[in-house]
Amino acid sequence: MTSLGAVLVLGGARSGKSAFAERLVTETGLSRHYIATGRAWDEEMQERIAHHREDRGDSWVTHEEPLDLISCLQALDSESNAVLVDCLTLWVTNLMMDDRDVATEANRLVDCVGSLKARVVFVSNEVGLGIVPENRMAREFRDHAGRLHQKVAAVANEVYFIAAGLPLKMKG
Amino acid sequence: MTSLGAVLVLGGARSGKSAFAERLVTETGLSRHYIATGRAWDEEMQERIAHHREDRGDSWVTHEEPLDLISCLQALDSESNAVLVDCLTLWVTNLMMDDRDVATEANRLVDCVGSLKARVVFVSNEVGLGIVPENRMAREFRDHAGRLHQKVAAVANEVYFIAAGLPLKMKG
Amino acid sequence: MTSLGAVLVLGGARSGKSAFAERLVTETGLSRHYIATGRAWDEEMQERIAHHREDRGDSWVTHEEPLDLISCLQALDSESNAVLVDCLTLWVTNLMMDDRDVATEANRLVDCVGSLKARVVFVSNEVGLGIVPENRMAREFRDHAGRLHQKVAAVANEVYFIAAGLPLKMKG
Repeated sequence: MTSLGAVLVLGGARSGKSAFAERLVTETGLSRHYIATGRAWDEEMQERIAHHREDRGDSWVTHEEPLDLISCLQALDSESNAVLVDCLTLWVTNLMMDDRDVATEANRLVDCVGSLKARVVFVSNEVGLGIVPENRMAREFRDHAGRLHQKVAAVANEVYFIAAGLPLKMKG
Repeated sequence: MTSLGAVLVLGGARSGKSAFAERLVTETGLSRHYIATGRAWDEEMQERIAHHREDRGDSWVTHEEPLDLISCLQALDSESNAVLVDCLTLWVTNLMMDDRDVATEANRLVDCVGSLKARVVFVSNEVGLGIVPENRMAREFRDHAGRLHQKVAAVANEVYFIAAGLPLKMKG
Repeated sequence: MTSLGAVLVLGGARSGKSAFAERLVTETGLSRHYIATGRAWDEEMQERIAHHREDRGDSWVTHEEPLDLISCLQALDSESNAVLVDCLTLWVTNLMMDDRDVATEANRLVDCVGSLKARVVFVSNEVGLGIVPENRMAREFRDHAGRLHQKVAAVANEVYFIAAGLPLKMKG
């Protein structure tokens, strides 16, 4: 099953992926919702989150949801909504920290995406193109993220890879 | 010289590059051979290898060859064979561990590829898109892998970059 | 404002981005200038710089300029010149080491690029596609580099992403 309304925007750090995803949501003309999965663990993270929120401006409803992304998407499921999820990699991090089964959650997310009426744009970091990390947890994170991207890309109707603010369309 | 039958499939960790390469081999309708260059150093690696083997199913002949990839390709060289090499980056790792001259081996591989009658699909990890590694050996590995990718891409007739399970055709 | 003559060539380590950029400059038929931003801190870096210089051959004028890239570009600004800047990521590193405000310098560079009469080809490393670095300075570097790439890509008339020596055109 391919969702008519799901988009995956992949890119590196500071690649402009969030700004691109925000434009996709804005262009729909629908009510804009932003699900922030990041947790403000420390000052640096707080600054990054505040910076993103400032960039978006006032016309968005922000929902902070580090873990229960699926419930949050279901609560926002309406044909009049466009939802930006920023980002899947932070969600994976939070699931791992909380000892949840990431593969199960990933499958639940993909099942949910297939039946949503809202338009959903997922932003995620591609993290698998560097040297193998020495840290086992980082390797597991990288594996979880890569597998989740494959699953979401399979049900998405559009997939973009962003570099230097420019999109490469990989699907759609 | 460009080999009519060589393909290079580049991608990050868990990008779906092996699955894509397996589909390319299967579509040829030829006898399927799988050259596994990975060494099962530890339990984690053993699990990864077993997982890959299970995913492939029974219709493949598996050859474990950490170092003498070229001899193995030559032994399988027949118009009725399609050979998947998974992966070049592990081969580079093994050559480095064994104190072989990677540049010389890379040149020998490329010479060999140009004259093969079998179809060959090389899978490899793109590892050069993260921060410069602090470890000198990791930097050397990254350099060897990058140079080898350029050489193989130059003689391949098709090159793909895979992200989230989706191929971007870069050559062919 | 989009510069008619600026090109950004992004790629990973040993992706063949410098060789591709050199071909772009050579094809212009203009006088070839090479601005090397790298500093020869240690023997490894000296070897890399010497290796690059040898690869280019004698038909280039080399300018070593770790910090004042903008002045150097302005001094070379003529319709008869083609200038290769190799690379932006080393320039960012040098600005950070020298405690300069990278964002300000990035904005000055982009303003300058928009008004140049010379053709300019910028080479830069994409460094944001691996795991988040544990080191805060590395994270800052990655952020600075990513933001600079977005800014330069916005004013460039062509942008390429290079892997395995092969270009993907992202803009132009």
